[in-house]
Amino acid sequence: MKKIAVFTSGGDAPGMNAHIRAVVRSALSKGIEVTGIIGGYSGMIEGNFMNLGRKETANIIALGGTILKTSRSKEFLQKGGRAAAADKLRAAGIEGIVACGGDGTFHGAHALWDEQKIPIVGTPGTIDNDLYGTDFTIGYDTAINTATQAIDKIRDTADSHGRVFIVEVMGRHAGFIAMDVGVSTGAEFIAVPETVTNLDELYQRILAQGKQQRTIVIVGEGDEVGGANTFAQILKDQYEINAKVTILGHIQRGGSPTVRDRVLASRLGVAAVDALLEGKTDVMAGEINSEISFTELEKTWTKKKPIQDYLINLADVLT
Amino acid sequence: MKKIAVFTSGGDAPGMNAHIRAVVRSALSKGIEVTGIIGGYSGMIEGNFMNLGRKETANIIALGGTILKTSRSKEFLQKGGRAAAADKLRAAGIEGIVACGGDGTFHGAHALWDEQKIPIVGTPGTIDNDLYGTDFTIGYDTAINTATQAIDKIRDTADSHGRVFIVEVMGRHAGFIAMDVGVSTGAEFIAVPETVTNLDELYQRILAQGKQQRTIVIVGEGDEVGGANTFAQILKDQYEINAKVTILGHIQRGGSPTVRDRVLASRLGVAAVDALLEGKTDVMAGEINSEISFTELEKTWTKKKPIQDYLINLADVLT
Amino acid sequence: MKKIAVFTSGGDAPGMNAHIRAVVRSALSKGIEVTGIIGGYSGMIEGNFMNLGRKETANIIALGGTILKTSRSKEFLQKGGRAAAADKLRAAGIEGIVACGGDGTFHGAHALWDEQKIPIVGTPGTIDNDLYGTDFTIGYDTAINTATQAIDKIRDTADSHGRVFIVEVMGRHAGFIAMDVGVSTGAEFIAVPETVTNLDELYQRILAQGKQQRTIVIVGEGDEVGGANTFAQILKDQYEINAKVTILGHIQRGGSPTVRDRVLASRLGVAAVDALLEGKTDVMAGEINSEISFTELEKTWTKKKPIQDYLINLADVLT
Amino acid sequence: MKKIAVFTSGGDAPGMNAHIRAVVRSALSKGIEVTGIIGGYSGMIEGNFMNLGRKETANIIALGGTILKTSRSKEFLQKGGRAAAADKLRAAGIEGIVACGGDGTFHGAHALWDEQKIPIVGTPGTIDNDLYGTDFTIGYDTAINTATQAIDKIRDTADSHGRVFIVEVMGRHAGFIAMDVGVSTGAEFIAVPETVTNLDELYQRILAQGKQQRTIVIVGEGDEVGGANTFAQILKDQYEINAKVTILGHIQRGGSPTVRDRVLASRLGVAAVDALLEGKTDVMAGEINSEISFTELEKTWTKKKPIQDYLINLADVLT
Repeated sequence: MKKIAVFTSGGDAPGMNAHIRAVVRSALSKGIEVTGIIGGYSGMIEGNFMNLGRKETANIIALGGTILKTSRSKEFLQKGGRAAAADKLRAAGIEGIVACGGDGTFHGAHALWDEQKIPIVGTPGTIDNDLYGTDFTIGYDTAINTATQAIDKIRDTADSHGRVFIVEVMGRHAGFIAMDVGVSTGAEFIAVPETVTNLDELYQRILAQGKQQRTIVIVGEGDEVGGANTFAQILKDQYEINAKVTILGHIQRGGSPTVRDRVLASRLGVAAVDALLEGKTDVMAGEINSEISFTELEKTWTKKKPIQDYLINLADVLT
Repeated sequence: MKKIAVFTSGGDAPGMNAHIRAVVRSALSKGIEVTGIIGGYSGMIEGNFMNLGRKETANIIALGGTILKTSRSKEFLQKGGRAAAADKLRAAGIEGIVACGGDGTFHGAHALWDEQKIPIVGTPGTIDNDLYGTDFTIGYDTAINTATQAIDKIRDTADSHGRVFIVEVMGRHAGFIAMDVGVSTGAEFIAVPETVTNLDELYQRILAQGKQQRTIVIVGEGDEVGGANTFAQILKDQYEINAKVTILGHIQRGGSPTVRDRVLASRLGVAAVDALLEGKTDVMAGEINSEISFTELEKTWTKKKPIQDYLINLADVLT
Repeated sequence: MKKIAVFTSGGDAPGMNAHIRAVVRSALSKGIEVTGIIGGYSGMIEGNFMNLGRKETANIIALGGTILKTSRSKEFLQKGGRAAAADKLRAAGIEGIVACGGDGTFHGAHALWDEQKIPIVGTPGTIDNDLYGTDFTIGYDTAINTATQAIDKIRDTADSHGRVFIVEVMGRHAGFIAMDVGVSTGAEFIAVPETVTNLDELYQRILAQGKQQRTIVIVGEGDEVGGANTFAQILKDQYEINAKVTILGHIQRGGSPTVRDRVLASRLGVAAVDALLEGKTDVMAGEINSEISFTELEKTWTKKKPIQDYLINLADVLT
Repeated sequence: MKKIAVFTSGGDAPGMNAHIRAVVRSALSKGIEVTGIIGGYSGMIEGNFMNLGRKETANIIALGGTILKTSRSKEFLQKGGRAAAADKLRAAGIEGIVACGGDGTFHGAHALWDEQKIPIVGTPGTIDNDLYGTDFTIGYDTAINTATQAIDKIRDTADSHGRVFIVEVMGRHAGFIAMDVGVSTGAEFIAVPETVTNLDELYQRILAQGKQQRTIVIVGEGDEVGGANTFAQILKDQYEINAKVTILGHIQRGGSPTVRDRVLASRLGVAAVDALLEGKTDVMAGEINSEISFTELEKTWTKKKPIQDYLINLADVLT
């Protein structure tokens, strides 16, 4: 291979820039040129490319977001869109691709390989941690630290007022963020889609805290009961409790990546380039038990990654 | 005077603990004992008091929230509640009070003095900065820095996606936070209750940014158009623009205070004790142009503190 | 068992408070009382004990340092000191101990078990990560993030001035911190005791950066060449390069723990209590590949934990 | 005027980028082009210029350091160097200059005006706050917050160990940083060049803290006794006290600017452009009591700005 491309797609995640940097530096060290595709699959179809060298990737390791931008493309969902993209890639001499994103990104990558036979290796770039085939995704560690620091601030107020606060964290399909953040903030109650949420238990917990004591409730946005506003409404209607609501929202996506995310992003960048050179394709490079591991793209979204048992137990014992 | 009391009331604000520490240390250095009233006016009525010495106030200067807790008391709004509180204060030998909070706190303090003639000096403790008689309130500097850091993170995502983000910051009656935060984050549009919000201008601004460029809109919660969700709805209905909404909420109240807030809180603590000793009462201790200044409590809420002209001009020139 | 004790010893590490909280809550949930020993082995000899309940451990999960304080005790190095300590422990009805610290702590714990047969389980509490038997120690993740954030700030200045900066990080006997921090900050050169430091290579690297480009050098304090000041002296004497030196020092020990540290500290707290109940003693509870693992105390300091190969490779490819 | 230039010089300071952005946007809004001089006076002599538009200054408001880099130039200290610089400026059509830096920068600016009659307005960009003619300099607020946050971390360890910690902060000629940081961290002792440092008093203070209590000593690097290492040596030699030393160093210069620094930097950027247009030269634009104020460059370094009395009093009463 003489030239590969890298792009980021779907929701942005802290560490994507560290990942791009690693792909570029690793490829250059092997004599391979790197093209950056700007704006994900849309940019691929439009041929919105840029050359990436050491200079373009200097001083980006600590930056949140992605210098290659990201987007969601309806056109690429069509076979014609993918064919158009492949034409642009071939015209630019691109022989392999590193695709950093979540399950939407991998659906596209899988189809591109399937139909167009352009080698493509995925890397898990999403704050949600909901991809099978890797212990952690790039951006997850930063997101849970950002959320925890925000909730530490809310606890100041909750303690001062002795009230019930309901905080909604991201995670549309999985409760990883809510569970880790709930344990790390010492929340009194954690609601995640993976376990049944018992509102009577929540009510008992609030009572147990006693008058003038705070109760912090962490709700993963995908919980079957609903989001934080739904919780507040139920608490008011059924239990006559006035709770305050905070939806952390997009602050969880941004910010300078943590060490874990920078190192993971860097390591997976090197691994993805190596994989392309070894002829691998249609797989995601992940990290399991500190070892690099490759998983067929299709399995990353068809197989379910469960929340670690020990976290669920910790939440039970310690909250 | 041999004994004074201090309490915090209304919404908590970063720096309240530094303030309590300063009141205690300053009083002790003058041979005066200090009683802490727990839970604001409710605690005053209940006689929920604690002794505050050097030990109780060690290592609190950096803590958010308030170790004396805070609350809103309906009972104290009644003359009978205030009489009951005064009885408790007198029984405990309290000869003067430092009341840290916002305009609700000061209404109560004014009535207490008026009816019960217990000397009381207010100090401005609120993140909103909406009190006449001081350039800045305790907690404001921390709140705008917290909000700015949060929006810096959102900008990572906004840039990566090239989208419109509407961020709502606190300030029910005043746009100080929104204006300072808007200027400091380089927002493209700032909506505050003090100026007329022109939605067509916002629309033009979004167009001017061009395709795939982010637009960040800062909305003060008291803006006459409504909150961030209202803005998003209007943008969708009238201009067919899909904007993302984040309501920063209670994270703005918490966190370790900035240097400015710790120093201001400390200085006003010392000033309030001095004022009580000099026989002052029914006034708020504030800081204007770096000098300590006293303002009748009633004026702190009847007079309007305007947003600084230069900030409004900066927003015009630089956004 | 009806009563156990917990203490922290050696250098303090972020997460120790989360650990204490978990030991207490876990024990209480099993009907066991918990005594806190204040000031490590010195406090043990003096019988400086306190009862630890839910209240004493509320709101400490996010705090740096250790509420039980820590110290280094010469007396405990003597058999007589350990006998005196054991007497105090027995008199207080303590039937098992959780000892959180580093290798010095474990030496003492091992001797205490050996001579006095009081069951004791160690937990790895040190920012240095240099204990065999656990992938990570409590405090390490916070320390590397604190160091990385500090170096991100130094990079601002290094870039602005285009100069050589030498930053010394902690790690007297091991280069874990230096290696992780070097990779995560994108440093141009990393010196650790585990690998041979080649100063000519450093010189070439500085030259390769070119005029007016910054070079950041991370030096682990245990490097065989010496600390940052030695590096600077050699660069000046042998290569006529003026470098700036920063020794990060004790800021690396403090601060609110990261999510990883809070969760690890919590998990190991629960595991240590379980281990005591199962009759385990003279072992350290650690985490290897996400599983709880027990290692004889003696092995934790006699066996050497190597820096992960992939980190060394990443440093080679990416710096 | 049709074209002006802006540059940064001396030590970098957080907020310099926000300042550059404001100069550019303000000038553009008045139809004036802006040239950026790269690398301070060296770049001026070399004609190292770049055009600065909206695009070049987008997304830099939150960045530490300076995109225009900075340096110290020996050549510019000579009349010949300044003449060469003036030639380059005239050749590029530059009719006025904004010079952001400290007293070294202003010496150069004054000489350039004096000899070459190119209009030049200075702006105070230094973390040291030691310029007469402005209440605060750009970068100062960020530096004191960075130092305070670092010392908050050190306090975790100091409390856990009950030891004496000596922390040296920047400020070669003035004690502003030390004084503000000392008050805001609740330090037990503060040493600044502006007041006589009494080591016996320090010793008494350490004794008063009692056994196993921490003592934090803040030393401004310009103190007449010497730096933190000198303090530690004296404590050891004369009083047999082992103290730990931390020199905060260059982390104080970097990092994302606080709101105060961003707003001040923006405001002074607009003011400097206005001043050039009004024909002002050989002056510094500063802010005194919230109003823009102009001071002859020469006075900024010949007149001494004292530490505020109230800060010194606060330190006395509260430490």
